[in-house]
Amino acid sequence: MTTGRLKIGVFDSGFGGLTVLRALLPLLPHAEFLYLGDTARLPYGSKSRATIVRYALSSTRFLIEQGADFLVIACNTATALALKEIHDAAPVPVLGVIETGANEARSRSKTGDILVIGTDAMIGSHAYAAACSARGLRTLEKACPLLVPLVEEGWIDHPVTAEVVRIYLTELLEQAQEAELDPDTLVLGCTHYPLLRPMMEAAVSPGIRVIDSAQATASQAARMLASHMLPGQPPGDGTGTLSSRCRFFATDSVAKFQGLGARFLGSAIDEVELVDLGG
Amino acid sequence: MTTGRLKIGVFDSGFGGLTVLRALLPLLPHAEFLYLGDTARLPYGSKSRATIVRYALSSTRFLIEQGADFLVIACNTATALALKEIHDAAPVPVLGVIETGANEARSRSKTGDILVIGTDAMIGSHAYAAACSARGLRTLEKACPLLVPLVEEGWIDHPVTAEVVRIYLTELLEQAQEAELDPDTLVLGCTHYPLLRPMMEAAVSPGIRVIDSAQATASQAARMLASHMLPGQPPGDGTGTLSSRCRFFATDSVAKFQGLGARFLGSAIDEVELVDLGG
Repeated sequence: MTTGRLKIGVFDSGFGGLTVLRALLPLLPHAEFLYLGDTARLPYGSKSRATIVRYALSSTRFLIEQGADFLVIACNTATALALKEIHDAAPVPVLGVIETGANEARSRSKTGDILVIGTDAMIGSHAYAAACSARGLRTLEKACPLLVPLVEEGWIDHPVTAEVVRIYLTELLEQAQEAELDPDTLVLGCTHYPLLRPMMEAAVSPGIRVIDSAQATASQAARMLASHMLPGQPPGDGTGTLSSRCRFFATDSVAKFQGLGARFLGSAIDEVELVDLGG
Repeated sequence: MTTGRLKIGVFDSGFGGLTVLRALLPLLPHAEFLYLGDTARLPYGSKSRATIVRYALSSTRFLIEQGADFLVIACNTATALALKEIHDAAPVPVLGVIETGANEARSRSKTGDILVIGTDAMIGSHAYAAACSARGLRTLEKACPLLVPLVEEGWIDHPVTAEVVRIYLTELLEQAQEAELDPDTLVLGCTHYPLLRPMMEAAVSPGIRVIDSAQATASQAARMLASHMLPGQPPGDGTGTLSSRCRFFATDSVAKFQGLGARFLGSAIDEVELVDLGG
């Protein structure tokens, strides 16, 4: 990995944040990336706020120590429950996935009524509802706790997964009708969900646009860096290989990270460094 | 909670061990129970051996400090990966769920061919295969990582869960046929699975007996205590209420423990004490 270029730290509790990294790579061809998956302590989605804040702060400190100039919190749960604490603790700019998803929803929605799905803790935090409300949008949220395990089992194109998606989204659409909402946007509030995007689109009516918060976050990070930070950076040639541009860190099994991570990143991961964050 | 009676520490990463406690309560009417669910760090099933050993030892120390005279490791993953370390660290007798499940399989099976299902880490450890092999049994093992999330979502009687159980067990039975085994016993190697026992029984042929390792563990603990420890204990009246006989500890959300735990225990849980094991 070369030095002197902009280093972007990307943090997630596990593998899902690799969908954000995947979206960032082509948008920021001159940057290098440090990806940390706190796999020993995943999933964050079922844990309490105090626990998630503690985990997120130790992960943040690690990425800063590794030289990150900019942090992308590619974990909806950590963004929902710990973004303020991360901002306070980090001496560099921080971008979380929720504001970016809400911004994208604001720019795309015509009716102003938004559906959001995610993990238990993320939905329980109502962080998306707050972010959308601040942008003049109404939201209806639903926790879909089986979707992460289904993706991690590799049942991406599986009929059981399609049925679970159909059940969850049918319940959500019925609740929207009862609440007299007219939703035209579904925000995927979990970085695992982009892998199920075709199923999501099949399960809702064509009038509902699916917003992938991983893609929205990458786009917004690229805009922020282009306007504020990149001009002072050495240009680089933008043609480095994945392993020359990215370092991967995990707090648990390296082999599992390589195996499962490749599915999210869409590329093989040659080397993963095991780190102990002491939890 | 009265003092002076035998105190049995029951440890699990989460809620599943409550199926073991549920089976222990009527078998040991004169004992008191300390249940620890290390919910901040669950699930153990997807973590590495080193991480699981570290978590199991801090949990063991906590239960000893609380006065446990006997430890039941009601977590298949911790038993598979950390039982030796727990034995070495604990100054009291320790019983794990795997030996007891293997003993039950040995006493019930006529063909000597056993099927075992459990979490990723438990199956990856091959601890059941080793325990069964030591008893002259042949085993075929299969990881079923979706079953714990389905139980925790409350989809106990749900058609999706029945379909997932059917898919997993059909694959396992096909593999048994390819391996020229003649299985007559299926061991539920995870303490969440007893809640799915009717579905398991419907998915296998009537010639295959389902062994619930929670029930097997409770029976064996009762036999050990009856023969070695109980004679010196004050008799008690065996009629205490649940809350007078059990203390519940969790490392994460008390409300979640009460809500989800009641499903596993089959009774309401009035009080849960939050503890910090530092991870």
